[in-house]
Amino acid sequence: MRDEFEWIKTISPAGHRQSSVIQGIGDDAALVQGSSWDQIVCLDTMVEGIHFTSETMTPYHVGYKSLAANISDIAAMGGVPLYYLVSIAIPSSWEEEDLSQVYKGMADLAEAYDMDLIGGDTVSTKGPLVLSVTIMGQVEPGRKLLRSNARPGDVVFLSGPVGDSAGGLDLLLKRSLTGPFTAEEKQLVKAHQLPEPHVGQGRILAASDKRVSLNDISDGVASEANEIAEASGAVLTLFHDKLPRSPVLQMYPEDQQDQWIFFGGEDYKLIGTMSPNDFAQAEAACKKGGYTLTVIGEVSSGEPGVRLKKGSHVEPLLKAGYNHFS
Amino acid sequence: MRDEFEWIKTISPAGHRQSSVIQGIGDDAALVQGSSWDQIVCLDTMVEGIHFTSETMTPYHVGYKSLAANISDIAAMGGVPLYYLVSIAIPSSWEEEDLSQVYKGMADLAEAYDMDLIGGDTVSTKGPLVLSVTIMGQVEPGRKLLRSNARPGDVVFLSGPVGDSAGGLDLLLKRSLTGPFTAEEKQLVKAHQLPEPHVGQGRILAASDKRVSLNDISDGVASEANEIAEASGAVLTLFHDKLPRSPVLQMYPEDQQDQWIFFGGEDYKLIGTMSPNDFAQAEAACKKGGYTLTVIGEVSSGEPGVRLKKGSHVEPLLKAGYNHFS
Repeated sequence: MRDEFEWIKTISPAGHRQSSVIQGIGDDAALVQGSSWDQIVCLDTMVEGIHFTSETMTPYHVGYKSLAANISDIAAMGGVPLYYLVSIAIPSSWEEEDLSQVYKGMADLAEAYDMDLIGGDTVSTKGPLVLSVTIMGQVEPGRKLLRSNARPGDVVFLSGPVGDSAGGLDLLLKRSLTGPFTAEEKQLVKAHQLPEPHVGQGRILAASDKRVSLNDISDGVASEANEIAEASGAVLTLFHDKLPRSPVLQMYPEDQQDQWIFFGGEDYKLIGTMSPNDFAQAEAACKKGGYTLTVIGEVSSGEPGVRLKKGSHVEPLLKAGYNHFS
Repeated sequence: MRDEFEWIKTISPAGHRQSSVIQGIGDDAALVQGSSWDQIVCLDTMVEGIHFTSETMTPYHVGYKSLAANISDIAAMGGVPLYYLVSIAIPSSWEEEDLSQVYKGMADLAEAYDMDLIGGDTVSTKGPLVLSVTIMGQVEPGRKLLRSNARPGDVVFLSGPVGDSAGGLDLLLKRSLTGPFTAEEKQLVKAHQLPEPHVGQGRILAASDKRVSLNDISDGVASEANEIAEASGAVLTLFHDKLPRSPVLQMYPEDQQDQWIFFGGEDYKLIGTMSPNDFAQAEAACKKGGYTLTVIGEVSSGEPGVRLKKGSHVEPLLKAGYNHFS
């Protein structure tokens, strides 16, 4: 790393896409115009060696996925992503070109959503790289697509097939970043390295103006469904045969598929619940937009938790998601 | 660390002070009501072994100062701090009690400003602790207290004495966290460990509705003054004998004082410029609020940069601030 300030210039955007940006990078703080919409904000932190390694992700992927995970959280609130800020703690072992690729990965995804990089902090560390991205977005006032909104009688839905990301990670761990991979396997690898947040689907659900409970799949279906069940004080029963699986994933043994679907995570699809009537309307609206919502279960009253129904057999589906400290 | 989720519950606030918070910690993202005021956002990252060590800062100080540095950036935009989010990458060597103290340091300062912790991410790392705090605040629409606002003819002012923080750090490095320190020395140590952001002064400057250039002193007067000079394309001349020095700092040799004032940093006072007439009004308003603004220099046209005038001698004052990668 040559001069910090010189390098920051190379990663700072020349202009802004959102006209609401008054001052981006370059002052004490960023300044953006207020809005009558409710504001959404969250952050996500990735650590080298914990959340990614150079065996499975290029620096470009690290940047891309870090922003994608944040955009997905905005999607899970039904919102429009607008701005992001980047905190990066850099070890001396990282080359400037690789660091620039991290920012390139974020910038390419930001461009697709007309988002602006408006701030951040770059520091050095004697440990592994730590990348923390803060994202801001907005949603129509009063729209609360919270995980506590599930009610008995609701249907449970998914916005797309899940498990592919974990399948891709498995391939990468076995064969390294460079493969070789078949064309089908490349789809799984891509799902892991370059996930697509479901902003469009979240926007349609927000626009429905109905009660919606919603989570994004960052930690596996089991964990996310349990979060909705706990927050809502309800039972979610998932139908094993209704879970959408990509054609590629179906090439693997069913047990393996299930493991990836329920406990894999990082798919960044949306899981939620709505009343059957409201869902029918939302599903139709999604179809018009080229999106698919799939019913995968139902909500009932009882001791909060998730059940998995396979044929006539029903068993508890425990959280068992990834616990960062376990 | 026992269970991540259990620990997060212990650091999550039971309620919110700002009625604008719709959803804090506990969903995909935080949700807050929109506002007609302009929004201010920034983040600041501290790494163990780079920005602090256990020889000079307790975990409580680390948390407190991390939020204080961010609040100071809001102050430098003339804003009201409202919310914060915390990203923390935790090494296994840190005890749960120490981590809780980091959050206690932030919470105590947040209480003083009626701020709410609304989100974050806790992850593990094999490296040193990395703490990144994102802060959000707001300012009256159209108020831009930017560092690019200085104009020839302005006076340069400071909102308080500087150099104390660097003096405190020097003492801590020489004598460790536990001292011994005299009563006077304790003032310097406190300035380093528990700095007070100048939010009240920033608010009065914002309320003046006049052109104000403003920076907070995070990297020393030389660096901050140069940033204003560069951003504004102007010359700032500082008068050596006008710089406010605390009584305790004056117990040290002048060369030492100067070193700390110009190149020390982490004082979190405000440096800015205004036209002489506007400044006179702002100074009077500050006096009513119990605050002191001190004229320390003047702005003129010329090759952008900072000059230091001592008696009849004028010399360039170079940035030479702390470069995180140098």
